[in-house]
Amino acid sequence: MTSELQDRRRRLAEELRLKKLDGFIVSAGPNVRYLAGFTGSNAALLLMAGGEAVLFTDPRYQFQAARETGCKVRVARGPLLPRLMALARRKSLRRLGFEKGRLTYEEYELLSEGLWLGASLKPVAGLVETQRMVKSAREIALIRRSAVTLCATFERVIGRASPGIREKDLAAEFDYQMRRLGADQPAFETIVTSGERTALPHARPTANRLAANQLVLVDMGASQDGYASDMTRMAFLGSPSRRLKQLYAAVLEAQLAALDAVRPGISAGAVDRAARNALRARKLDRAFLHSTGHGLGLEVHEPPRLGKREKTRLAAGMVITIEPGAYLEGFGGVRIEDTVVVTPGGCDILTSTPKELLLL
Amino acid sequence: MTSELQDRRRRLAEELRLKKLDGFIVSAGPNVRYLAGFTGSNAALLLMAGGEAVLFTDPRYQFQAARETGCKVRVARGPLLPRLMALARRKSLRRLGFEKGRLTYEEYELLSEGLWLGASLKPVAGLVETQRMVKSAREIALIRRSAVTLCATFERVIGRASPGIREKDLAAEFDYQMRRLGADQPAFETIVTSGERTALPHARPTANRLAANQLVLVDMGASQDGYASDMTRMAFLGSPSRRLKQLYAAVLEAQLAALDAVRPGISAGAVDRAARNALRARKLDRAFLHSTGHGLGLEVHEPPRLGKREKTRLAAGMVITIEPGAYLEGFGGVRIEDTVVVTPGGCDILTSTPKELLLL
Repeated sequence: MTSELQDRRRRLAEELRLKKLDGFIVSAGPNVRYLAGFTGSNAALLLMAGGEAVLFTDPRYQFQAARETGCKVRVARGPLLPRLMALARRKSLRRLGFEKGRLTYEEYELLSEGLWLGASLKPVAGLVETQRMVKSAREIALIRRSAVTLCATFERVIGRASPGIREKDLAAEFDYQMRRLGADQPAFETIVTSGERTALPHARPTANRLAANQLVLVDMGASQDGYASDMTRMAFLGSPSRRLKQLYAAVLEAQLAALDAVRPGISAGAVDRAARNALRARKLDRAFLHSTGHGLGLEVHEPPRLGKREKTRLAAGMVITIEPGAYLEGFGGVRIEDTVVVTPGGCDILTSTPKELLLL
Repeated sequence: MTSELQDRRRRLAEELRLKKLDGFIVSAGPNVRYLAGFTGSNAALLLMAGGEAVLFTDPRYQFQAARETGCKVRVARGPLLPRLMALARRKSLRRLGFEKGRLTYEEYELLSEGLWLGASLKPVAGLVETQRMVKSAREIALIRRSAVTLCATFERVIGRASPGIREKDLAAEFDYQMRRLGADQPAFETIVTSGERTALPHARPTANRLAANQLVLVDMGASQDGYASDMTRMAFLGSPSRRLKQLYAAVLEAQLAALDAVRPGISAGAVDRAARNALRARKLDRAFLHSTGHGLGLEVHEPPRLGKREKTRLAAGMVITIEPGAYLEGFGGVRIEDTVVVTPGGCDILTSTPKELLLL
C-alpha cells in the first residue's frame, strides 16, 4: 500500500511538471486519502513537483495522521491553508495549482491572502479524480468485496419487505445488516420507497408503511475499507399489473443494452445513449430523468459521468454504475442498477443479485 | 411552517436591502432547506431583495420540489447556476451576493461566466448561518426530540458494551436502535473507540474487540426531522484506575464549569476558556486538543464555534454542544458532551443521560 501511495504521488508529480506547476494543493478528503492514506476529516496536502508531500491536519488527528500516512505531517491549530501557504513560500514554490471543484471560494480567498510576490494560484479541475478513474487491481478487489457485502445484505433483508413495515425501518434494517456483514457504513443514505413514491428517483425513506400490491424500490451502497458499491433492485408485494410488467421490462431492456455497450474505448455518452434509445423505443425516454450512471470508488459519485454529452472514453479498470430508470408520476418508477468494472472484453458485473422484479 | 419559511425569507430579504444586494444565491443544502423547505440534495435558490424566491433543482426532484416548497420551482437539466444567472439577468438584478463559504471556486467561475454588463458578484460569509444561530421554539422542540431519541438509544444499547464485542458492531447497534427509536439517521458517523484509541478524538470504530478493564468512548448524534443532537458518554469495563478516575473527574469538572458559564451575552470564547482554565488547574490544558463546542441544528456543526478566540455572544435560543476532553497518547482519552439550549437564565441540557463514568 505504501508503494502504491508513492506511485500515485509520483504520477501526480509528473503531471505537475507537465503543467508547469511547482506545487499542488490537495484539499478534497478522498483525494488526500488517495495520495497520502490519511482518513481523517480535516486535512490538506501540499504535493511538490519534485515529489515531496506534506500533510496538514489539526490536533484531533495528530496521532492518527502519524500512524496512517507515509508523508511528513504538520499539525496546525486553526485553518490549515495559511500554514500550507507558509510552507509553499519557504519552499519557494511559485506556480501553485489548487482543486477548483473542491475548494470553497472562501478557502480560495485564504490561499490568495497567503500569496507572495512572484507566486500565483492556478485553478485546476479534476487532476486527482482523473487519475482515480482507472482503479488498480487492489482497488477493484476492494470494490468487489464491497459489492459482495451489498448483495448479501440485500438478499438477507429483502424478505422483510412485507405489508405493514415502514420504509424507514426497512432502510434501517438494510443498513444494520450491511454493517454486520462487513461494511463500514452505507455509501449513501439508503433509499427505500414504495408505491407511487418510487416515481421520486432520490426520495428518502419515510414512515409510510408498505402495503399489498405495492412496488418497492431499494437503492443502496456499501462503503467498505473506504470503497463504495451501489445497486438498485425492486420488489412487488403481490401480482404486478400488465402496465408495471411492461415498464419493468422496458427498463431492464435499457439496462442490458447499456451493459452491452460498455467496453474500453466507447464514450460515456454512447453508453448513456444505448440506454436512452432502448427507452425511446418504448416511448419512455422522457420518463428517464437522470443520467445512465457514474464512476465510483473512494466516493460513490466520481468521474466519469455517463450522461448524454459525456465524451470521456471508458477504459479497462474503470468502475461505473449502469442505472437507467423510468418514472411516471402518479403511477411509480422503475430503476435497475449494477456496479460494473470495465474489462478488456466488456465488463464484469460486481453486483450479482438477480435483477428480475422480485415478487414477495 | 409555511409562514415560518416566509418569515425567514422576509428577514433575509431585509438583510439584502441593508447590504444593498439585489439578490442572493443560496447554494448550501441546509440553507436552501431553511429558507425554502426543500430537502433534496441538488438545489439552488435565488432570493431577491423584493422578497421573491425561485428554487432551481434537477428533474430527479421535480415532483418532490413541487410538494415541499412554497417557492416557485424551475427544473433544469445540467448545472443549475447558469439557469439561475439567466433568471437574475431577466430580473435585472445587478448586485448579486453568493455564499462564499458554500460555493466551490468552480461554481464561482460558472456564476462569473453568467454575468452581464453592469452586474457583479459579491462574496458574502455566513448570512443565512447567522440567522440560523438562534432557533425558533419549533426548532428547539425538534432538537429536543432528537436528543430524547439519542439518549434513549444510548441507554438501550450501552449495556451491550462488554468484552468481545467489536467497536464497529457496537456502533452499528447504536445506529440501528437510534432509527428504530425515531431518528432518520445518525447525525454523523457514530464514534465508538476503546482502550488507548480513546486518545484519538475523532477515530472511526474499528474491528477491535472491547476487552476487560478498558475505557469505551461513544460520541453520537441523531438526526430527526432534519435536526441534529450530539452527545458523548463513556463507560469502563471493570474497575478504573486511580489515574483514570482523576482524568475523568477533571474533564467532568471542566464540562460543568463550561455549562455554568453559558448564558446570554457571554462570548463563545469565554465559555471555551471556562473549560480550558478548569483543565489547566489539573495540568491538562495541553491535552485538550479541540474547542469546547459548536452550534447545531439543521447541521451538526454550525456557528457559533466555542473556540478560544471566538467573540460571538451567546443568545437565548442558540443550541450548542459543550464537550471538553483530555487525550493522553498511550493511555486514553476522556470527553463528556451535552447538547444544550441557551435560555434567559443560563442553559437547559437537552441530553439527559447521566454523565458519570458508567461502570459495566
